[in-house]
Amino acid sequence: MDRDYITRNKTRPVKVGKLTIGGGNPVWVQSMTQTRTKDIDATVKQIDELEKVGCEIIRVTAMDIESAKTLGEIKKQINIPLVVDIHFQYLIALEAIKQGVDKVRINPGNIGSKDKVQAVVKACKEKNIPIRIGINMGSLEKDLFFQYGKFGIARVMIESAIRYIKILEDLKFFDIVVSLKGSDTMITRETHLMFAKRYHYPLHVGITEAGPSLAGIVKSAVGIGSILAEGIGDTIRVSTTSDPLEQVKIAWEILKSLKLRQKGVEIISCPTCGRTEIDLIGLAKKVEKILANVDAPIKVAVMGCVVNGPGEASFADIGICGGKNQAVIFKKGKVVKVIQEKDALPIFIEEIRKVLIEKGYSDKIKNIKIKIL
Amino acid sequence: MDRDYITRNKTRPVKVGKLTIGGGNPVWVQSMTQTRTKDIDATVKQIDELEKVGCEIIRVTAMDIESAKTLGEIKKQINIPLVVDIHFQYLIALEAIKQGVDKVRINPGNIGSKDKVQAVVKACKEKNIPIRIGINMGSLEKDLFFQYGKFGIARVMIESAIRYIKILEDLKFFDIVVSLKGSDTMITRETHLMFAKRYHYPLHVGITEAGPSLAGIVKSAVGIGSILAEGIGDTIRVSTTSDPLEQVKIAWEILKSLKLRQKGVEIISCPTCGRTEIDLIGLAKKVEKILANVDAPIKVAVMGCVVNGPGEASFADIGICGGKNQAVIFKKGKVVKVIQEKDALPIFIEEIRKVLIEKGYSDKIKNIKIKIL
Repeated sequence: MDRDYITRNKTRPVKVGKLTIGGGNPVWVQSMTQTRTKDIDATVKQIDELEKVGCEIIRVTAMDIESAKTLGEIKKQINIPLVVDIHFQYLIALEAIKQGVDKVRINPGNIGSKDKVQAVVKACKEKNIPIRIGINMGSLEKDLFFQYGKFGIARVMIESAIRYIKILEDLKFFDIVVSLKGSDTMITRETHLMFAKRYHYPLHVGITEAGPSLAGIVKSAVGIGSILAEGIGDTIRVSTTSDPLEQVKIAWEILKSLKLRQKGVEIISCPTCGRTEIDLIGLAKKVEKILANVDAPIKVAVMGCVVNGPGEASFADIGICGGKNQAVIFKKGKVVKVIQEKDALPIFIEEIRKVLIEKGYSDKIKNIKIKIL
Repeated sequence: MDRDYITRNKTRPVKVGKLTIGGGNPVWVQSMTQTRTKDIDATVKQIDELEKVGCEIIRVTAMDIESAKTLGEIKKQINIPLVVDIHFQYLIALEAIKQGVDKVRINPGNIGSKDKVQAVVKACKEKNIPIRIGINMGSLEKDLFFQYGKFGIARVMIESAIRYIKILEDLKFFDIVVSLKGSDTMITRETHLMFAKRYHYPLHVGITEAGPSLAGIVKSAVGIGSILAEGIGDTIRVSTTSDPLEQVKIAWEILKSLKLRQKGVEIISCPTCGRTEIDLIGLAKKVEKILANVDAPIKVAVMGCVVNGPGEASFADIGICGGKNQAVIFKKGKVVKVIQEKDALPIFIEEIRKVLIEKGYSDKIKNIKIKIL
């Protein structure tokens, strides 16, 4: 249960500030600010908040030269690599590069002529920073689009990527990250499978315009998850219509669900059914809240009945299994205690504390939110 | 954009009441009640609620003979096929079959000896109802488990399925549905890929013990979604630790995100960024709520800026794209109206109404929740 299941594609390592994307490095979590970039204080504040929930690379948009000119100051005040997002105007890219950003994302579909792309490439080369070529289903070059029609969108996206990779490669520029985003999960997946067969550049994976609420979460998880499951993807960004902190949390849950990364406690709990004798949903949610800030790689099971509980709990470092008015606490499949339902939670938390100590995470105990009890 | 992207595996069609699982039929959405089964009123009420949100096959547990004896009455009062879940005691299965359930789910790992399985098979054969062999990572047969060790769990699950399929096939019983559930997304996916190469029995797909809240939603979406993306799966059940209505909604979002099924309006909306000039999250959530009960297959886009908005909105039947104090309404890529931000929502809803009429869904207009405006 503890090995990696996914054999990741071999990609070229590309340095972005202090991190390296690709080349077998962890799949990094990215996000994008929603503040006005030129409002330095608001932008830095949001980046700090995002870093706290696990954002590892941050992208900001630069709509105008004024925004681009603030990037040096923003970079000075933050801890994670800073990526600038440029649309339409290559001069803004040049200013951002001058300001010392760690990566430039351009959308070849709207940045303009080859000359302009070349100017950006030259500037990046001088500063030794990479470029992300961000192909987006929504802003494909019109000529390619008409050539292939709407059913060949995956091929159109690949062709668009090939064109721009060639411009960069012709300039002997190879520090390239590519993204091939669409709002359709299966077209996006197909595009990634096709691209990964042909190129070794690292991929930044995302589903665009995923939408709000539950639909957005599920669409992102299915789209990004089914690409990562194929071993494809070196960094991800979730684009639900929501708070960017929520986007980062979703991204981490995707990576955790595939065991590509580990963060915090893994809670295993059953869906409850007519056999359940305890308030399992309530108990599981409480345990989740109590352990939300405990960043230790332990597995905690909260199970409703004896049918699957003990079996699943045997994989967990610690588990609770509810019965009629009483509960059983397991550690790696072995019963530790039989307790009354009313005492279950405090005793269970006490046992989790012991597990943290045993596994060498005693410094994490202070992050248990006992106030909820 | 409107064709099916997923080539589904060819599986044997198996009748479950009025529906057929497998054989190219739609991927059906299942759920399980959380009521005491013997409380007929509560159980029927929950099944009715589940049916309203899209549950197409319902499973109830029968813990004892008393519960099993209520199944005939429950079946009489509901509209969707009724499946009974049996653990440990085959005599309960026999009573449930007598009561006229549409399918029996047994977990070979805990139902007991071959004789007992045979008795259940014989009874199902007489009533012409199928059996789901439900292998669960948490309750595998101990001998297989020790033989393969914990790293060979996928193989253990397959071996367990093979054993029980053989018992059924030896009795010339072929109306079999198989499930191979685990709490680990990648082991579960691997198990499904292996099984689908060898057998043509339809698969009931699920991730067990997915856990509560966001983690549970994401784990289910990644696990079930990455299996369905391979063309595998004929019916699904989401097992998050939450209200079963929520489970059904998640299941539908998974199927919709893969374009395997269509239900309600598809909302495409962007993640907002520093370029966004309108309250996009608010607008998208409002539009989603207003259209929540409109079950018509239209695509509605809510976009924050001109960069990707028009492109994405061209795939949508209708879209709104926010600018500075004003908004633009698109239909299939063509601008219909430029309006003030404050009037945007009512005018947009009016245009959605027109689209519903144009596409032949005028009967759905009454389900637009205008009270939210």
